[in-house]
Amino acid sequence: MLNVENIFAGISNALGGEQLLTLFENRAMKIERIVSQSYHSPEHFWYDQSEPEWVIILRGEATMEFEGGRFVEMKEGDHLIIPRHVKHRVHRTGPQTIWLAAHVAHADSGKRE
Amino acid sequence: MLNVENIFAGISNALGGEQLLTLFENRAMKIERIVSQSYHSPEHFWYDQSEPEWVIILRGEATMEFEGGRFVEMKEGDHLIIPRHVKHRVHRTGPQTIWLAAHVAHADSGKRE
Repeated sequence: MLNVENIFAGISNALGGEQLLTLFENRAMKIERIVSQSYHSPEHFWYDQSEPEWVIILRGEATMEFEGGRFVEMKEGDHLIIPRHVKHRVHRTGPQTIWLAAHVAHADSGKRE
Repeated sequence: MLNVENIFAGISNALGGEQLLTLFENRAMKIERIVSQSYHSPEHFWYDQSEPEWVIILRGEATMEFEGGRFVEMKEGDHLIIPRHVKHRVHRTGPQTIWLAAHVAHADSGKRE
């Protein structure tokens, strides 16, 4: 029942790619580990989320791009709240960047613990 | 609107103590930074939570105690889901242990973003 796992374990090499792993999920929220290896979002792609998201970089670094031409540099330990419907994309990441992302589940979602 | 902050900044010295900082909170969940400096929960104190909690150690190390005499060692990067109503306490931490804790808000809570 009580299983300790390590966030830095089980990382595969996928240069240019992104690897997602759900660490915790219930009806209210989802916590994901994201490993980005020299990754960027597809050209002209924007995330546009109906709920806020909280992200932190645990290893590495990244540049986020926000609609309107604002770029935000993030390094190890940096965290950020991305408000709902603020369009954003990953401009670039370091060779191995490890994020945590906490998503709010939709209030009307049918998900259960 | 987009404020990057660093999780390792603004840590005061309070040996034997615990310092809590809310990083993100809305109607669904709360994410806290907890800094524990050679801390342990009060004797005979147990956390008994009505919702599950997810915790990770970002720096340092700790030993959690669970009811029934089970001790769980956690080091940097280790994460754990503590199910609801599983009684637990902090048995000890290293001199400076930095945690993230994600709590689910109560479903019937009146909190709003």
